[in-house]
Amino acid sequence: MRRVEVSLGSRSYDIVIGEGLIDRAGAEIAAVLPGIRAVVLTDETVARLHLTRLEIALQSAGIGSTSVTLPAGETTKSFAQLERAVDAILEARLERGDAVIALGGGVIGDLAGFASAIVKRGTNFVQIPTTLLAQVDSSVGGKTGINTPRGKNLVGAFHQPSLVLSDIALLDTLSPREFAAGYAEVVKYGLIDRPDFFDFLERRREAIFAGGPERAEAIAISCQAKAAVVAADEAEHGDRALLNLGHTFGHALERAVGYDPARLVHGEGVAIGMALAHRFSVRMGLATGQDAGRVAAHLQAAGLPTEIAAIPGPALDRPTLMEAIAQDKKVSRGRLTFILTHGIGRAFVARDVDRADVERFLDEELAK
Amino acid sequence: MRRVEVSLGSRSYDIVIGEGLIDRAGAEIAAVLPGIRAVVLTDETVARLHLTRLEIALQSAGIGSTSVTLPAGETTKSFAQLERAVDAILEARLERGDAVIALGGGVIGDLAGFASAIVKRGTNFVQIPTTLLAQVDSSVGGKTGINTPRGKNLVGAFHQPSLVLSDIALLDTLSPREFAAGYAEVVKYGLIDRPDFFDFLERRREAIFAGGPERAEAIAISCQAKAAVVAADEAEHGDRALLNLGHTFGHALERAVGYDPARLVHGEGVAIGMALAHRFSVRMGLATGQDAGRVAAHLQAAGLPTEIAAIPGPALDRPTLMEAIAQDKKVSRGRLTFILTHGIGRAFVARDVDRADVERFLDEELAK
Ligand SMILES: NC(=O)c1ccc[n+]([C@@H]2O[C@H](COP(=O)([O-])OP(=O)(O)OC[C@H]3O[C@@H](n4cnc5c(N)ncnc54)[C@H](O)[C@@H]3O)[C@@H](O)[C@H]2O)c1
Ligand SMILES: NC(=O)c1ccc[n+]([C@@H]2O[C@H](COP(=O)([O-])OP(=O)(O)OC[C@H]3O[C@@H](n4cnc5c(N)ncnc54)[C@H](O)[C@@H]3O)[C@@H](O)[C@H]2O)c1
Ligand SMILES: [Zn+2]
Ligand SMILES: [Zn+2]
Repeated sequence: MRRVEVSLGSRSYDIVIGEGLIDRAGAEIAAVLPGIRAVVLTDETVARLHLTRLEIALQSAGIGSTSVTLPAGETTKSFAQLERAVDAILEARLERGDAVIALGGGVIGDLAGFASAIVKRGTNFVQIPTTLLAQVDSSVGGKTGINTPRGKNLVGAFHQPSLVLSDIALLDTLSPREFAAGYAEVVKYGLIDRPDFFDFLERRREAIFAGGPERAEAIAISCQAKAAVVAADEAEHGDRALLNLGHTFGHALERAVGYDPARLVHGEGVAIGMALAHRFSVRMGLATGQDAGRVAAHLQAAGLPTEIAAIPGPALDRPTLMEAIAQDKKVSRGRLTFILTHGIGRAFVARDVDRADVERFLDEELAK
Repeated sequence: MRRVEVSLGSRSYDIVIGEGLIDRAGAEIAAVLPGIRAVVLTDETVARLHLTRLEIALQSAGIGSTSVTLPAGETTKSFAQLERAVDAILEARLERGDAVIALGGGVIGDLAGFASAIVKRGTNFVQIPTTLLAQVDSSVGGKTGINTPRGKNLVGAFHQPSLVLSDIALLDTLSPREFAAGYAEVVKYGLIDRPDFFDFLERRREAIFAGGPERAEAIAISCQAKAAVVAADEAEHGDRALLNLGHTFGHALERAVGYDPARLVHGEGVAIGMALAHRFSVRMGLATGQDAGRVAAHLQAAGLPTEIAAIPGPALDRPTLMEAIAQDKKVSRGRLTFILTHGIGRAFVARDVDRADVERFLDEELAK
């Protein structure tokens, strides 16, 4: 069992990472939040697989709870489902000292966290992330929220959990595609500023995919990496920007395929985006082709795409991608901001990137 | 022009109070938030009376703005109207550094503040309260939110404004009944711990109702009183309890009449509640009948009710009221908490009030 502390003054909390943790969830929660009651929010897929074990664990620790099962998938991050979640929490007569527990991936974590933030202007919140993406990314940082027809994650709150319990064994029921997608974010932390971690991933990738101590280690280091950034900038006033490595290109690709998960899930977009960010850096004379090659090779070995052409369905064109890049929120007042790199583990924020350079680069990539 | 500073560390802000302030709103806002754009949220009644002046003032200070007019009344504090407000703010492509401006009473202030809190996880917020209640109470403290079918103000956020502009002349278009209702909250601050302020109110009530410097003075002192409590307990973890003077009885009365504003508006409930709290304190041997008499006389002179029997419609009975008191959130785990008093300006939190004493007191009041 590993513990990563997220240091946020009086709102500091632990991320506990371990195998079979869900069966001890009640005891872990009761240790941090004694005497509470809880509402568990989850989705249909996760409920079928893992809810009963959590309910038993809560019960055996004397935590009375109600469970609310929402539909699985991104469309659940809506006002309609938020209202439903809020109503269920109120129906259970939760007090501010009680807890909302999110059992699920990033969708449930974001929605439940937001509901917890606004019911009675804030109840306690516990995350039990069940996807790799949620364990290494969405459960760390306190960003919660929903989508609106005008865009993703446009409505929400900063709301830190009291505790995060990451049971690495729960990931065994994830589809290989979902596991790989989350793994893209793990790789990202190595590429940003932890070259040793990237080396570790190259050496131990198979073990991480198989489960066990290497998986726990990779998740713990990922959480540490994100927690360090969050601790420096909790309310995201300044720069969490490096965390967007691979995301400007990645988001543009997601937008260009209309967020169709059959064609591209977020982590796949990030994988292609990271490969592109490295190749673009090579093109700009910033990094070596050797590093870009290592990155692509590692992502491919993990089952992730690294080329725009790898996206199934109609081919994407440059105007569509440039349009999608321009809509990204990291474009501030016309100038393009990208996370570029001097090599593995040496990413940096490049503001004022020349639009023409990006266009030329995309033309080359699309002509491959 | 008066300024009251609300001291909340890096989130400190000013409440500016003055006559005709709305015409200088643009300049005041631009001084605090240079270079912003804005979305003004208001209701139909206020829009008809005062919106154009605000729009002109914003324009003349170079603040581009869009206005969104919602229906007037408490039912506007709903998920449906929140979603509408959020969508309008997003449609205007407001950035986090831009501002949502609330032009209206407590309903618009609470709703707009909540929308501002959650769009992009927080935009700037400016309050231009247009009712006396909003100027002395709801615009101070950072509590924002909406109602749900399960109860009032059960969903929301703490979100402090960057600036509050209270134009005391806007209150001249309020109905006498709404003005008096807000005045109940003004009286409350005197009764809690400012006996000199209560003296001032007794002496200058007519001038305050007429407008001018005494009105500004009464509003400024009220804001100072609330700001002091808020500064001591921003997130309401501990005791803002004294602010509930008159509110346990008051809320029970509102609930008992089904929140029917034709029978009782909030401030009227608070007025009766404060009169009851003083008489109950006399009954318990805590305060003198003379003080209770002074309080009732002053409220009556202001056009406010002080007796349960003054509520129009079917007579209320004791079981209904006790039931409504028991549902109040200030009832913690069965014991009754009331704000009682040792006399004018000497209120205190009485926990463990005996249910039977309350019942006996209500029987006497209802038999009058
Ligand atoms: N808050 C943040 O900081 C942050 C950061 C990154 C991403 N996100 C958000 O996270 C969301 C994506 O998260 P996600 O990828 O976890 O999506 P998700 O929650 O939709 O989970 C993906 C799928 O896996 C299923 N699933 C979850 N756990 C499972 C398990 N153990 N076994 C089998 N199936 C399981 C889910 O039912 C779902 O169908 C997006 O909405 C994104 O915006 C938030
Ligand atoms: N956030 C807080 O801390 C806090 C504190 C107290 C009350 N509140 C909330 O405030 C709300 C009540 O506020 P309110 O009494 O201002 O109600 P309100 O906003 O509904 O205003 C009352 C009526 O007066 C009209 N009006 C507003 N300004 C006017 C003007 N200048 N001239 C003519 N008509 C005008 C409105 O259209 C409305 O019909 C409640 O929802 C309550 O929960 C919040
Ligand atoms: Zn990501
Ligand atoms: Zn009140």
